[in-house]
Amino acid sequence: MNSYKAPLKDLSFIFNHLLDQEQLAQLPGLEDLGVDLYESILDEAGKFATNVLDPINASGDREGLKIADGVVTTPKGFKEAYAQYTQAGWNNISLELEFGGQGLPYILSTAVNEIMMSANKSFVMCSGLTIGAIEAISHAGSDELKQKYLPKLVSGEWGGTMNLTEPGAGSDVGALKTKAIDQGDGTYRIHGQKIFITFGEHDFTDNIIHLVLARLPDAPEGVRGISLFLVPKFMVNDDGSLGERNDLRCVSIEHKLGIHASPTCVMAYGDNEGAQGYLVGEKNKGLMAMFVMMNMARLTVGMEGVALTERSYQAALDYARERLQGVDAETGQSVAIIEHADVRRQLLQMKSNVEAMRALSLFIAQAQDISFRHADAEVCQHNQGLVDLLIPVFKAWATETALKTTTTGIQVHGGLGFIEETGVAQYLRDAVISVIYEGTTAIQAADLVGRKVVKDQGKNLGVLIGLMKQTLAQAEANADLADIAFELKYAIELLEQHSRAIAGQFMQSTKQALSVSVPYLMLTGLVTGAWQLAQSAVKASELLAAGDSNVNFLKGKIETARFYHKAVLPEIRGLAYTVSNTGSVITGFDNVYFGE
Amino acid sequence: MNSYKAPLKDLSFIFNHLLDQEQLAQLPGLEDLGVDLYESILDEAGKFATNVLDPINASGDREGLKIADGVVTTPKGFKEAYAQYTQAGWNNISLELEFGGQGLPYILSTAVNEIMMSANKSFVMCSGLTIGAIEAISHAGSDELKQKYLPKLVSGEWGGTMNLTEPGAGSDVGALKTKAIDQGDGTYRIHGQKIFITFGEHDFTDNIIHLVLARLPDAPEGVRGISLFLVPKFMVNDDGSLGERNDLRCVSIEHKLGIHASPTCVMAYGDNEGAQGYLVGEKNKGLMAMFVMMNMARLTVGMEGVALTERSYQAALDYARERLQGVDAETGQSVAIIEHADVRRQLLQMKSNVEAMRALSLFIAQAQDISFRHADAEVCQHNQGLVDLLIPVFKAWATETALKTTTTGIQVHGGLGFIEETGVAQYLRDAVISVIYEGTTAIQAADLVGRKVVKDQGKNLGVLIGLMKQTLAQAEANADLADIAFELKYAIELLEQHSRAIAGQFMQSTKQALSVSVPYLMLTGLVTGAWQLAQSAVKASELLAAGDSNVNFLKGKIETARFYHKAVLPEIRGLAYTVSNTGSVITGFDNVYFGE
Repeated sequence: MNSYKAPLKDLSFIFNHLLDQEQLAQLPGLEDLGVDLYESILDEAGKFATNVLDPINASGDREGLKIADGVVTTPKGFKEAYAQYTQAGWNNISLELEFGGQGLPYILSTAVNEIMMSANKSFVMCSGLTIGAIEAISHAGSDELKQKYLPKLVSGEWGGTMNLTEPGAGSDVGALKTKAIDQGDGTYRIHGQKIFITFGEHDFTDNIIHLVLARLPDAPEGVRGISLFLVPKFMVNDDGSLGERNDLRCVSIEHKLGIHASPTCVMAYGDNEGAQGYLVGEKNKGLMAMFVMMNMARLTVGMEGVALTERSYQAALDYARERLQGVDAETGQSVAIIEHADVRRQLLQMKSNVEAMRALSLFIAQAQDISFRHADAEVCQHNQGLVDLLIPVFKAWATETALKTTTTGIQVHGGLGFIEETGVAQYLRDAVISVIYEGTTAIQAADLVGRKVVKDQGKNLGVLIGLMKQTLAQAEANADLADIAFELKYAIELLEQHSRAIAGQFMQSTKQALSVSVPYLMLTGLVTGAWQLAQSAVKASELLAAGDSNVNFLKGKIETARFYHKAVLPEIRGLAYTVSNTGSVITGFDNVYFGE
Repeated sequence: MNSYKAPLKDLSFIFNHLLDQEQLAQLPGLEDLGVDLYESILDEAGKFATNVLDPINASGDREGLKIADGVVTTPKGFKEAYAQYTQAGWNNISLELEFGGQGLPYILSTAVNEIMMSANKSFVMCSGLTIGAIEAISHAGSDELKQKYLPKLVSGEWGGTMNLTEPGAGSDVGALKTKAIDQGDGTYRIHGQKIFITFGEHDFTDNIIHLVLARLPDAPEGVRGISLFLVPKFMVNDDGSLGERNDLRCVSIEHKLGIHASPTCVMAYGDNEGAQGYLVGEKNKGLMAMFVMMNMARLTVGMEGVALTERSYQAALDYARERLQGVDAETGQSVAIIEHADVRRQLLQMKSNVEAMRALSLFIAQAQDISFRHADAEVCQHNQGLVDLLIPVFKAWATETALKTTTTGIQVHGGLGFIEETGVAQYLRDAVISVIYEGTTAIQAADLVGRKVVKDQGKNLGVLIGLMKQTLAQAEANADLADIAFELKYAIELLEQHSRAIAGQFMQSTKQALSVSVPYLMLTGLVTGAWQLAQSAVKASELLAAGDSNVNFLKGKIETARFYHKAVLPEIRGLAYTVSNTGSVITGFDNVYFGE
């Protein structure tokens, strides 16, 4: 198997030429930073990923997890790698300075996340979930809870989890049944079972801080009756030392298609006297407290799509360059399969998609940085609007695309791709869950249509389309990019038309609109990717004209954008047609027609 | 996990209303048969699949295979099931009567194959490969070889294998290096290693008859220097009893993404004195002898796509009907997820694809039956032309589609889909290899464009399009199907246009044409599927008008066709665009642009 190399050249291009470093450098807290620092950190991240995480990725997948008496053992090398990871601070790049975070921008943590997840997705999930817990406590917790728990969560000394799902309540969180009973002394007793708890139990850290959604006895039904509780595995004494074991345990771990080294736990709270917990935020407002970090969690899951596509692409490219098969019709010489016409198409499909997704991820991260830090509330709102709009698009489009690209990665390897030792099958297996957790593709699509496009009457979408049209004007002004501009123009028009169409449908029949919301989301994702690659092509063309010496890389950027616009983007033609014409067929399909 | 049920209603519809039973009943050997008999056999096949094969499918996947000292042990229950399978004659439905086959038509064996593979793909591969070996021996072998080996291969008492691939020779069979040395006594000694040998070693049968491609010392290079040899695991005495063990062994078995119960073997021939073998057919014409069964083998692999889509659809449909999640906005009642707009879309995607693929598979099988049996050479040629044209389309389109549909099947299950015990992840894992073996999708596409469309100057394609236009005329004459006719008309036009376009490209630049040959193939597959479903809708509409009581089934047929035409078929718009516009971008992409 080949060794992972961080895509530093592409990241450098994006950081230098697509992101607005001037504006970023003016944001509070980022004044003394700059692209040189970011690049040196990305370089270090790449080394860590290549040297520490990548070598235990396939072995971790093969070895998997062990559980005995509620104790989970992670694969060989994982615990040690975690110690190195947190010691180097890879776990808290963008966390607030106050509790020990590094206060660096999301553009950096997002890029680092891609790198680390390319090398070892299972491994990174522990700190990913911990960050989610930190953000919830940070946002909604009392000062006491923050002081007591945040420093060790931020340092990585303790792990954190998010406990939402129950056997009867998956996407419908409001249906959960776990109970919390007020003890009158500032603590609560929690009773209930949670499933699909990522890193609910493990051996990376001495303590694990669980955030658990539960219902108080007098709570209203549904999502308005859910409270959030902090439930430590070991109670924490006032001096910070660990006290007695809390009444919670990992009942079992799941046997999964992928992410074999990431324990997915069934957790039992309160087998005996009840697990002790503390209320985080207000009663019955737990879902809000937990949804604070939803955008960043969804961005992270979207990054999994980028990361696994990149990893699979690297493996496929290396193999395509080494593997001899067949002879060239003209020369009669043996050729590497990269010369085969269809293998080139496959590699370009992977390359163009990953570069489009990566550029979009960092555009979103930048908007989030601006929104969180800018002094002008209007600027913040403008940028937050873009984040809110683009998060469901990116999450679903990037993860769905990764299913295709990682499958392509297998196919480039021929029969070898199907052999587990080759390593590329793992990327597909690891990628499948990303279209499901943190909200399925259908949930992202419903969020996009109902809450992001219809609710503000297309305002944020209008802002996005305005940005796309700026890029379009630049591409149109560049004769070498005429064909790209032509495709982008058509794509933007389709997006505008079908956004209006689905919003209109939504007003008439929510169900009909939702039945074509996934095709609409994928259309939006594809067009957004085209916009990012067109922007890349514009910049690359400018740099070439200015005599930049990185000729092959920059020409490759332009040709990759060209391929995407002609061989990836055109899928929107079918999607658009489906959005306009299918709603009533789907909703009108009688249940008995599915079979009796 | 739900229990598999054979899709007898859909098969009955196809057998009665889409196939030409009148013509079939006039073919030599089929005169006394008829749809009643076929249906009763399919009913029995369904029972066998449900009761014997389905119950050991997931357990076989979990348990996998064991190897010790070259002896392969299949999972619990497999050996016993194989004995039942062959005793019931499921292994030789369409084999010739002469050596013990049942001489039944391919339409029947194709449908039975779907049923059995839905229930347990790994299991069925043993007899699938054996049939390939039988057909090669039957076609090219001497009478002596036929008499000695065919009866026990046909009965299933012995297994058969196909040994093509070597470490350095995958799709490029001509590069193989295994040697054969003439002993001057009618036997040859074989030396070499073969990989990816399906059921190369197992415990189902007492003997295994390997068909091995190898080179004689004086053979020309490349594909014109390959001969085919019959190499038994145990030598066979003149009285039919087993003699000494031959000099061949299974070195290892692969650890694969899927089909865990189907041993994929590395085979070593001639570690010592050389494995004894017999020439099958003429010297240096081995590839031709082996390619005789290529069409039927590719049809079988295409059926794997149908089978796994059906299995995954059944699991998803059952789950969607049972799983309560969320409440209906209007009634406030809990609803099963089949009511969720996007789940309906997902189920319809699976249902419409599987019905399109199934109908096409049986159309091809029928053409093959006519071609093999009809008295009029012209009729045979006409039908064989359709088979030759449609086989690569069906093989690649059905297997590629299965990757999407089995992924959808996982997604319908939400997080549970990712848990192996749920069972639906296996369908995806089992499906992945089908796009690779028996010729990758790229190879099917090259075959389609180069040998099937260009070579005969579009003659057979013209025949196919003529048939599509007949269906179109029927749909156009039916007011209820106006929208389906509209879509089909556009689709046929696109297919005609882009067939001409890619043929033109092929003459100018083979590489450019091949670089878009997969999108062209997928376009062809989608249009062919639309044609079959339009035909189904026409028939269903006629039956409804005639007062057929199967109202829900028939209305479902029409609406399924409608969904396909509006939400599946439109993908051709993007594919067509790519076919026309991308060739030069792909072939012109400099290798260094992929990265340095």
